[in-house]
Amino acid sequence: METAAIAAFTPPVRTLMGPGPSDVHPRVLAALARPTIGHLDPQFVVLMDEIKALLQYAFMTRNELTIPVSAPGSAGMETCFVNLVEPGDKVIVCINGVFGARMRENVERCGGQAVVVEDAWGAAVDANKLEAALKAHPDAKVVAFVQAETSTGAESDSATLCALAQRHGCLTIVDTVTALGGTPVRVDEWGMDAVYAGSQKCLSCTPGLSPVTFSERAVARIKQRKTKVQSWFLDLNLVMGYWGSSQKRTYHHTAPVNPLYGMHEALLMLRQEGLENAWARHWRYHLALRAGIEAMGLRFIVDEPRRLPQLNAVTVPPGIDEAQVRQRLLQDYHLEIGAGLGGLAGKVWRIGLMGHACSLKNVLYCLGALDAVLTGMGASINPGQAVAAAQAQWSHGAGK
Amino acid sequence: METAAIAAFTPPVRTLMGPGPSDVHPRVLAALARPTIGHLDPQFVVLMDEIKALLQYAFMTRNELTIPVSAPGSAGMETCFVNLVEPGDKVIVCINGVFGARMRENVERCGGQAVVVEDAWGAAVDANKLEAALKAHPDAKVVAFVQAETSTGAESDSATLCALAQRHGCLTIVDTVTALGGTPVRVDEWGMDAVYAGSQKCLSCTPGLSPVTFSERAVARIKQRKTKVQSWFLDLNLVMGYWGSSQKRTYHHTAPVNPLYGMHEALLMLRQEGLENAWARHWRYHLALRAGIEAMGLRFIVDEPRRLPQLNAVTVPPGIDEAQVRQRLLQDYHLEIGAGLGGLAGKVWRIGLMGHACSLKNVLYCLGALDAVLTGMGASINPGQAVAAAQAQWSHGAGK
Repeated sequence: METAAIAAFTPPVRTLMGPGPSDVHPRVLAALARPTIGHLDPQFVVLMDEIKALLQYAFMTRNELTIPVSAPGSAGMETCFVNLVEPGDKVIVCINGVFGARMRENVERCGGQAVVVEDAWGAAVDANKLEAALKAHPDAKVVAFVQAETSTGAESDSATLCALAQRHGCLTIVDTVTALGGTPVRVDEWGMDAVYAGSQKCLSCTPGLSPVTFSERAVARIKQRKTKVQSWFLDLNLVMGYWGSSQKRTYHHTAPVNPLYGMHEALLMLRQEGLENAWARHWRYHLALRAGIEAMGLRFIVDEPRRLPQLNAVTVPPGIDEAQVRQRLLQDYHLEIGAGLGGLAGKVWRIGLMGHACSLKNVLYCLGALDAVLTGMGASINPGQAVAAAQAQWSHGAGK
Repeated sequence: METAAIAAFTPPVRTLMGPGPSDVHPRVLAALARPTIGHLDPQFVVLMDEIKALLQYAFMTRNELTIPVSAPGSAGMETCFVNLVEPGDKVIVCINGVFGARMRENVERCGGQAVVVEDAWGAAVDANKLEAALKAHPDAKVVAFVQAETSTGAESDSATLCALAQRHGCLTIVDTVTALGGTPVRVDEWGMDAVYAGSQKCLSCTPGLSPVTFSERAVARIKQRKTKVQSWFLDLNLVMGYWGSSQKRTYHHTAPVNPLYGMHEALLMLRQEGLENAWARHWRYHLALRAGIEAMGLRFIVDEPRRLPQLNAVTVPPGIDEAQVRQRLLQDYHLEIGAGLGGLAGKVWRIGLMGHACSLKNVLYCLGALDAVLTGMGASINPGQAVAAAQAQWSHGAGK
């Protein structure tokens, strides 16, 4: 490409209702643009300490090792595996969607042996199957599963799965990328050991950072490793020297200063709203969206008790080219919703209601746009019902 | 820490003249705050293509695989090693500072066998020693070295070292973190194979991204690997599907959207200034700084022909507590300069003149502040000479 013609990039203003990134609050965008300071500046150490404390709040934990990894959620996942899995270790991996499968990849690339417990895409992880695997593999050292499967919108029961793992002497690695800030992640109460999340989902921060937290048991395991962590960049023995509690921080890598300004602001907003209020908000607007989706005649692929309010996988009406629908929504409405992944490609849309994007405005806008586009394409839906149904549900929920 | 009392973080406005991050231009900060779009948005694909083209310009290469890794420079380094080194591979690592030593760590964590060629800190890599090592180890597959040692300010001769490596059938991995945008990095002309840089040095972008470029030879090696890359996140076979040239981008990880806005703007500014002009600017202000430093009676630890203009390692006067000097500069002048690392800790300061921070204003301010603080502490320097000497050198250089 000829570079002489390149001009400043001015992105369109989208409404982000896919599987993430979600809409970023103006406060967070403004924070990103604050002046850069050094990654060893005493004021930056203050920022780091506050981010750690705010992440402890978000994760509901007192874990000392609670920090943002300087890279996206996939690197947060990898941080958990490379630090806790040594060559030859047996790891039980529960797979019920894309991200469970990625966990298996991680185990194998660490030289571990993955024992797979499979459930259908859209279902939660079955605790009975996990228990059977734990009994069949008493030498397993780690259990890994996804609490909130971003590819399907199914929620698994972390409390039960972690208790089971602990009873069989296993540590747990849990993916809460889509959960954190939208639905409960009770790290200490549920006895989770290594937990990673993403910045760009219900925290409504920009993508690029991955909050993680490790229990004392997990930290002890890391300190007792017989082999070096295969990643220098993600080696928590080294990272702890920089993010640790001592006054003197040892340089490891250069932290992403401005993105951390954004994360601080996003976490502060979550603290100001209150976790419980944020969870309630996600449910309230999910119910409004659900009323609209069902009034249209579409359905959810995840059964109610295990459905995540923030990630709504909705079936595509028969005979409709789903990609064309998304294209029209993007072009005509500047509205982004997500496609299906893997076996669900072409069959579902994933509508995100995450963080700042989880609002009445977005619910009504999305339903109106989807209704109009589908009607225009001759889809077999009930046209013109969705917005009113959502509005009625919202008024009802608000006690009006 | 109690979170209830945490307020918005408002960083102080520093002058960043350490080893990076350097001062970020207001245009780059403003770009960071632009509205977030999805990482698969068609407009985002436009941004990705433009960033690739601008990076090709900065690296002086036509390499197709020229992208920013979604993490800091240390992850860029790791990307090169995990993709090019397989277990058992012999890698010649040239060490003349902190970052060469980190390269050896990377080789070993990939299961490779590191053969070390050592030079003194502050010296350049000795081509004769490398040649001897290549002759002694005809089975070596890769040569790794640091073109611009951020820990000392010494520049090694990439053209000669890469030609040597190529003559012995080795690929090269080259660290240009501190070089890119400040001094020449002629990837194609010099036959470099895998090159990584940082966003927060002479590109004057915020920290958190690492531009990398890979030759066709390197890409062929990666495609022919017998083993999987040990990092899923950094596996270029997968990353290429997302950053590749095809119209259809395959989701790998969620790219750090807003930091990439900043990188686009920073690269655009480099393109608008012109590489050659940027290099000349770094030399011109280095010469002004040098005049001031020498007028004060301090000296550089790197000999002239191999001295990087953008990273000035300067000796601490005898009897002076260097940390106290930096503390006063930070507190009284909001000016950050860098400490020495490793064996140079306590003995040198590292004064950065990188990218947007490489200006007459910064040179004069830094010299004035250092002069005043050192004089105040009773250091044996020639007081009151530095600023005038720099000013005279600058006027002379400007032909005035």
